[in-house]
Amino acid sequence: MADGLVISVDGMGGDHAPESVLDGIEIAARKAPGARFLIHGPAARLTQMLEQRPAAKAASTVRDAEKFVAMDVKPSQALRQGKGTSMWNALVSVETGEAQACVSAGNTGALMAMAMMRLRKMEGVHRPALVATWPTAQGFAAVLDVGANVEADGSQLVEFAIMGEAFHRAVRGSSRPKVGLLNVGSEDQKGHEEIRSAARLIREAGVDLDFYGFVEGDDISKGTVDVVVTDGFTGNIAMKTAEGTARLVAGFLREALTAGPLARIGALLALPALKKLKDRMDPRTVNGAVFLGLNGIVVKSHGGTDGLGYAAAADVAIRMAKSHYRDEVAANLARLSAATAVTAATAAMPGLS
Amino acid sequence: MADGLVISVDGMGGDHAPESVLDGIEIAARKAPGARFLIHGPAARLTQMLEQRPAAKAASTVRDAEKFVAMDVKPSQALRQGKGTSMWNALVSVETGEAQACVSAGNTGALMAMAMMRLRKMEGVHRPALVATWPTAQGFAAVLDVGANVEADGSQLVEFAIMGEAFHRAVRGSSRPKVGLLNVGSEDQKGHEEIRSAARLIREAGVDLDFYGFVEGDDISKGTVDVVVTDGFTGNIAMKTAEGTARLVAGFLREALTAGPLARIGALLALPALKKLKDRMDPRTVNGAVFLGLNGIVVKSHGGTDGLGYAAAADVAIRMAKSHYRDEVAANLARLSAATAVTAATAAMPGLS
Repeated sequence: MADGLVISVDGMGGDHAPESVLDGIEIAARKAPGARFLIHGPAARLTQMLEQRPAAKAASTVRDAEKFVAMDVKPSQALRQGKGTSMWNALVSVETGEAQACVSAGNTGALMAMAMMRLRKMEGVHRPALVATWPTAQGFAAVLDVGANVEADGSQLVEFAIMGEAFHRAVRGSSRPKVGLLNVGSEDQKGHEEIRSAARLIREAGVDLDFYGFVEGDDISKGTVDVVVTDGFTGNIAMKTAEGTARLVAGFLREALTAGPLARIGALLALPALKKLKDRMDPRTVNGAVFLGLNGIVVKSHGGTDGLGYAAAADVAIRMAKSHYRDEVAANLARLSAATAVTAATAAMPGLS
Repeated sequence: MADGLVISVDGMGGDHAPESVLDGIEIAARKAPGARFLIHGPAARLTQMLEQRPAAKAASTVRDAEKFVAMDVKPSQALRQGKGTSMWNALVSVETGEAQACVSAGNTGALMAMAMMRLRKMEGVHRPALVATWPTAQGFAAVLDVGANVEADGSQLVEFAIMGEAFHRAVRGSSRPKVGLLNVGSEDQKGHEEIRSAARLIREAGVDLDFYGFVEGDDISKGTVDVVVTDGFTGNIAMKTAEGTARLVAGFLREALTAGPLARIGALLALPALKKLKDRMDPRTVNGAVFLGLNGIVVKSHGGTDGLGYAAAADVAIRMAKSHYRDEVAANLARLSAATAVTAATAAMPGLS
């Protein structure tokens, strides 16, 4: 099933690396027998630590890299000094074809900059985008871009839609995910020109998508669509606002259930149910944002996550690597680029338009 | 205390008008003795309905208006056909000085368009903005713009900051609210040029604000600042995303607490605590968005709210009307406009810049 599947791992990325990384590989290796992990980092230290993690040990190869990228360096600095770090080498393993996907919990800006440099943009993609998974009343939605670009024009938003749709199928196993454009209203004339032109382009370009139209902020959690498309500024703010709100409600709930003796007894009786609720809201289960649009799969884990969270990110990498994600995106991008070429040509010839 | 205070009311605005409106006035009148309400709508019907609402009856004058604005008409249509409607007349009462503030739960677009036409923009304001109140871990934050404009440049964002800060003091009674600009990171170089220029302008223009700097999406619920400033596109999406998330978590909680007999008993014991939690999350308590930046106070209630929610919106109108909101905004706007005039003059003279 996972024959020949190799995931490249930045062993030193993340606030609790390498412990959290190796804990994650231990869980992921048990879940995906057959997958191999190529872990980049200080060989002696990692090899010794793998002794306590038998499944990870059996499924992994350690590749020595003494340097690593600090969590607080700027992307430009990381590009200049990054060569030979565990993050850089993990990306190079994907570039050379030794691995089919790469996972890192390190510095996001550095990872995106290095990934762009080593793996380059896929043909037809103008701006790679970061996609996040979001729990909804219906299951899970893919939301992108959540921070790779602060702006996006109409055709870039369509590229995001194409990549996000293929991502949802690859990782969530959906057959025909519904795609929506995030806006401030559902009527055609609402919002920025960029969004309106993206909607027109999807409808007119013959892109193979189940396009729902515009969705509003509250539609994300409702699960009105499976893929929510927006620029990186709005997407990042929506994602963090939702995280903040969930944390606020959880805090209010905790306060309420510890406010008096009756509430405490009630909470105790309801403990298994509340535990299940907590698991359902656990950000670790949806860990693993993917940097889409490159010649290679790059998964970004939250920097502060633990082994369970890291395993979820590794699982995303494995699902993406096993899927036909790239071919599907390539086919749809070709349709889009043919359509935009026609639009550009007609615009250049006023007599025809 | 509220001597001579008159609030003008659109008796026919809202999904459940006029019942919800009169229920709201009944509650508001009990809470604010001395305040008078000038209710616009079909006089015979409203007068009869006031018979069952003694506090509202004692505090109100009914002004006949047979027409009303439908919930689904477009703003342009409302402008053409709106004259003489209960909404129009409620605004005119503020324009003539007969009332100090106006409340409507009617069609938002129509209300904004009519308010702009009748009350005009305040001197120094380029774009009025809609401000919403948001529950946080620390209390309540004012978030603006939540939908009046899809875009805003740097100096318009500063105008929002000035208006939002004065609003927080007027309605929340804070003495020195902290103001933040919503962005995708806290570093100076993050985000759109509009936001970065707004930050520079606040720091350099001598505007009298406690400016915190950039905040991210999760800072809103944390209560990192009291006033969150953003454009109407981002603000609207953030607000609806938060509402959707809170509803999702509440739904998950409900499911968890009804999943089995033990959970049900636990929930029953914790019922008063859960009730308190529900009240705390009740959107009715923060009802009443204010359309800031006009020569007069216009409060927009949610269209679907009931009497309790409407009373909260009326309370916002009363607090605003009693405050020095306008003078404070005018003083700060004068500082801003002096600073931008200097900037524009230096930019026009390259030798000086």
